[in-house]
This record gives sequence, C-alpha cells and structure tokens, in this order.
Amino acid sequence: MKDSDYMHMALELAKRGQGWTAPNPMVGAVIVKSGRVIGQGYHRRCGGLHAEREALACCGESPEGATLYVTLEPCCHDGRQPPCTDAILEAGISRVVVGSDDPNPLVGGKGLCILRRRGVEVETGVVKQECDALNQVFFHFMKTRRPYVVMKYAMTLDGKTATRTGASRWITGEEARRRVHQDRHRYSAIMTGIGTVLADNPLLTCRMEGGRNPVRVICDTRLRTPLDSKIVRTAREVPTILATACGDVLRHAPYEKAGCRVWTLPEREGHVDLPALMERLGGENIDSVLLEGGGTLNWAALESGTVQKVQAYVASKLFGGTTAKSPIGGLGVGLPDQAVQLKNTMITRIGEDFLLESEVAADVYRDG
Amino acid sequence: MKDSDYMHMALELAKRGQGWTAPNPMVGAVIVKSGRVIGQGYHRRCGGLHAEREALACCGESPEGATLYVTLEPCCHDGRQPPCTDAILEAGISRVVVGSDDPNPLVGGKGLCILRRRGVEVETGVVKQECDALNQVFFHFMKTRRPYVVMKYAMTLDGKTATRTGASRWITGEEARRRVHQDRHRYSAIMTGIGTVLADNPLLTCRMEGGRNPVRVICDTRLRTPLDSKIVRTAREVPTILATACGDVLRHAPYEKAGCRVWTLPEREGHVDLPALMERLGGENIDSVLLEGGGTLNWAALESGTVQKVQAYVASKLFGGTTAKSPIGGLGVGLPDQAVQLKNTMITRIGEDFLLESEVAADVYRDG
Repeated sequence: MKDSDYMHMALELAKRGQGWTAPNPMVGAVIVKSGRVIGQGYHRRCGGLHAEREALACCGESPEGATLYVTLEPCCHDGRQPPCTDAILEAGISRVVVGSDDPNPLVGGKGLCILRRRGVEVETGVVKQECDALNQVFFHFMKTRRPYVVMKYAMTLDGKTATRTGASRWITGEEARRRVHQDRHRYSAIMTGIGTVLADNPLLTCRMEGGRNPVRVICDTRLRTPLDSKIVRTAREVPTILATACGDVLRHAPYEKAGCRVWTLPEREGHVDLPALMERLGGENIDSVLLEGGGTLNWAALESGTVQKVQAYVASKLFGGTTAKSPIGGLGVGLPDQAVQLKNTMITRIGEDFLLESEVAADVYRDG
Repeated sequence: MKDSDYMHMALELAKRGQGWTAPNPMVGAVIVKSGRVIGQGYHRRCGGLHAEREALACCGESPEGATLYVTLEPCCHDGRQPPCTDAILEAGISRVVVGSDDPNPLVGGKGLCILRRRGVEVETGVVKQECDALNQVFFHFMKTRRPYVVMKYAMTLDGKTATRTGASRWITGEEARRRVHQDRHRYSAIMTGIGTVLADNPLLTCRMEGGRNPVRVICDTRLRTPLDSKIVRTAREVPTILATACGDVLRHAPYEKAGCRVWTLPEREGHVDLPALMERLGGENIDSVLLEGGGTLNWAALESGTVQKVQAYVASKLFGGTTAKSPIGGLGVGLPDQAVQLKNTMITRIGEDFLLESEVAADVYRDG
C-alpha cells in the first residue's frame, strides 16, 4: 500500500461525517505501523472528537513510531477540542501525511511547523485535490464567512422545468430524487422562494433514512407565506426562517407564534437582499445552502453573485412549449459574452437522468 | 488477434466512407490469412466498389482459404454492383465473419445461406452493436424510405438558445462548432425554418476541409425567403429546396430562376406538412436530415413524429432570462407523463461543452 492508498482510506472515513460536522470540516485519519492499520477515525459531528484523536483512541497497540494519515492539516489551537498536534506528539507518532492545508491563513502551516520542530517527519499535499474537493463548503465558509450556495434544478433535455401548464411532477426519476434528499442532508440549509411555496406547498425536509433536516429559508419579500402552509405548520419541528423586506412586526407575530423566525432584510431590486441574507446566515454558522428555487429567485441569486455551484439534473425527455418555464428567469444577460461562466463541470449518470455540476467561474456582467 | 479485433479494424475502415456512401451503408472489410491481414477495403462512395471487392482486389497474395471480416452481411443481388457473394466464392474465402445483418427483409440472410451451402463457414453478430450503430441512418432508411432526422441544437446549462435580446453567437466553443460541420458533411440534407433564415441569413454549408455540402431544405410555409438571402444567392452551387404551402407558381418562378427547387406541399397546423416532406425527400434518396431549426420548427417536427434523434450541445454557461428562447417551442405537452421520451442517451465532452445524444423512444402524446 502506498501513501495515497492510505489517504484514500482516510477520505472514505471522512465522508461518513457528511451532513453532521458543519460548520467543521469532514476529516478522516488512519494510523499505520509496520504496514498494518492499527487505528482509524473520523470527525463524527461538530463538538465531537477530531479525527486524529479518534484514530489514536482506538489504536489496538502503541502508536509510537507509527505514521498518521489525515485528510486535513491537524489543528494546533484550542477550539472546542484541545490541539491535535499535542495528541500526535504525546502518542509518539513519527510521521504525519497530510491531504489538504488548513485554509485559515492565521493557522495554516503552524501545526506542521510544531510537529517538524519536534522531529516528526511531515509530508503534505497527498491526494490533495480529492481532499480539497471534499471540503469545498468548509474552505469557502472559512474564507468568506458566508454559506456556500448550490443552485439545484431539474429540467428536461430541452431546458424546461415544467410543462406549459406548470406541471413538474416528475421530471427526473426516483434515483435522482433520492440524491436530492442526500443533498438536503448534506447542506446546512435549504432555500426557496415564495413563488414555489405558493405553487407547490412543499415541506422541504430531508426524506433520507437517518438524515438530518436542513434549516429552511424562505425568501418572502412581501411576507405572503400562508399560515396554513406545510412550512409554517411544521416550523416547531424543523427550523424555519422567513426572510422578508416587510418590517411590520405585527405581521411577523403569527409566524413567530407558529415557530418561525422572521428576519427583516433590506430590499434590493424588488427582492430580499440576498448578499445581506447570506451574511446573516453565515453569522449563525450556516455554512451551506441548497437553493431549490424557481426561475425568479435563481436569477436574483445568480445576479447578486450569491451562487457558488450549479447542479442541473437533466432528464432524457422533452416537453416543448414556448410558455413552459426554464430554470433561470429574471432579466437575464443581454449578450452571450456576458453569460455567467461555469467551470470544472462534472457529469454523473443517475439512473435514467444526468447530473451536471459546475462551479460558478465569474460574476455575471451587469448591463442594467 | 481475435475476431472482434479484426471486426474493429473493419469498422474503422468503414467509417472512412462517412458522408460519401448515402444512400448506401458504410461498410468495411478485412481479409486475414494465417494471422496476417492480406487485404482491406471499404465502400468509398455510392456507385463505387463494395468493401468486400475492394478488399479482395488489393490482396497481396491469394485469398484462398482466408477469413473475410465484413461489417455488414454481403449482398447477393445485382444492384449497381454485381453480388459480393459471387466474388467471395470465386476468391476461395473459407470463412466469413459478419457484423450487422442486412436490414432488407427480402434479402436478409440469403447471401449467408448461399455461402454456407457452398461450404463457407459463416459467423454472424460479431461486434454487432457497434456495426449496427454505424449504419443507423441506413437501417432506418431501408425500413421506412424516409430520412433519419437528427434534431440538433446548442443551449446553455439553463436551457437557453439565445439571450433575451436574441443573440446566440456563440453559445458553444469552436470544437463543438467544428463537430457540427462534420455532421453537415455526414448527413445528406440540412433543414431549417424561415424564422432562422430571416433572423440569421445563414449559409448552411459544410465548412469542413474536404467536406461535402448537404442539400439545403428550407421550411417556408408562406414563401418568404428573401431573394437576396445567402441561401438563394448560392442556390446554383449548393442544392436548395424550398418547401412551401404556397402553390402560386408565379411566386415560385424567381426562386427557380435563381437555382432553387420549390416544392409545394400540403399545410398542416399552419406549417408545411413535415411527414409529406420527409416522404418526398426519401423519394429522392435523401436518407438523412440534420435539423438545425428554431423552437417552432423543432416542435412541429417532434410533434409530427418526424425526429429520430436529438443532439443537444450544452455549454457550461448560464444566460438566464424569462424571455430568452429555449430549443423547443410550439405548444408543448400538457403533463410530464406526455413528454417525448428519449432513450440510449450518450454523453460526450467536446472541449468546454457537452454533447448529449438521445434517440426518440416514442411519439409525443397529442392532447390537442
């Protein structure tokens, strides 16, 4: 087994924490002595042991002289947990192999320095690309303190999100829809607009076995969410935020009584100011948002530079129809050169459907 | 080398005829003796030697006792060329390995019967799937006597074929656009609607080095193509058909004088009757049509059951815009269950873009 093989093991362990670690990163660790794995662990949930300590704690024999593989640079500062560098030194680990660097510029490299000074052999950047990809959300949140926003939509191969009559159940098959529920578990919040609430009366929960419900965020500029909607009626069980430009606290009261939180935000071009909303969500340690909106909200989010990633589920079918809706509405760009450019597009076959995932490469050009 | 390896060689040879053999199939042949390839050939163009005879003619030594690999069942009837079965028997070939069966029910299997009766060992169905795929157009045309229609469009990842201002140059990158010119060479005709002619004044020729121009077919129900359009002005160099519901021969005259052919066809729901047009094109041995239309023509073609394949080029960018056009317009279906189902979707990365190719699985449900 090579270093990269052990790092892949650590990566697989790290993924088990998916959906539970936010706003912490997912981290996995493997301890190897004389070619045998003697300990392994991962960060199970925010507030729990770090992966390195988990791995050390479960070693069946002394880790002295062993190699530690860890997907992210070990921490060297007191947070909720004592520094991992201390634990590594105490255990007598002689070699540490690291995947991703710590994205915090105040911390990055410091832990490794401490280890090296104490005679531990340190190697970095092993399987780095995959380790980095696993924690895209964490890295973005560390840098910006705003949530990583994933715009998700499902469309036909001719770009329709509904038929001309507005019907959209179902565009994709079961497997793709199951995958969406995994993402609802994975990301900290789910966001949609008042249009979708009025049209579909959705629940926006995670229907994955053993899954976690995301915080629900409704962009409701004029506070029109019906008090008897599923969202409001379940607000005691599932955290729910109504983001509105309506500052009338008397109108807030019935929602708050039902268990919703109502946030008043500035208005921007007829919508709740989305960058301001993201800032506030970030302040509450919400590191990621799955945006399942309609065309209007999608455009507002894109246009305000709020989106980091696009997930387009594409079904192998055609609806046709000049009046049928497409995933992104609003004004749109005027010229092809002004398009929102995407990069690192990945494609995955999911049952009968395809998932195209792209990162937003640049802000949209605003031509008023 | 196994049988399948030699068949793959024959397949590669067959592909060299692409764009030149219509309405004949592409066929490749390899002759192997004592483990050495002693002859190879392919059908170069309609009217030329069949692949089997080409391969036999170029043998450096006697093909007696050799094995012939051929991607399509050899013919046994007099057409433009004498039967290949005769040539195979005369040459003393002792074994014939075949990819695709002859799709003509009157002929299928007959040639192989003749060979077997004369003591030749025959094996069929080797690399059949790929051999069949190569000649989808031929098989369709043999069965229906109507052209195989490929609907091609380019769109952004949010399903737009133009920005809100109607601008569409360019959506995809150079590589994808080059690929379209290969397809213009490959298919016998190119078809578009009057809307595209008026909006873009296109030339619709093949700008591939060594390529062949497709016959241009314009669906122009009311005969509005400008006499000074590029299409009309180049009609002497590139065969051009105007398909119209306008029966006024006086109005046809100036187009005909410019070199166009004007076909009067019945009208169907405000459009030229597309099935009738396909029948007439088939009657002229046009075995395939690349449909590069706008949303209106695309829907008319789909709705009338005229389309066999969809080629969607998808660019990694977003336009947004409620009023921006999408690839298929018209009325569209009313409910998701009524969608035009696609099957065998293949995906190819072309530079920065993606090509999704699907076969139409079933006719659109008409709900009036």
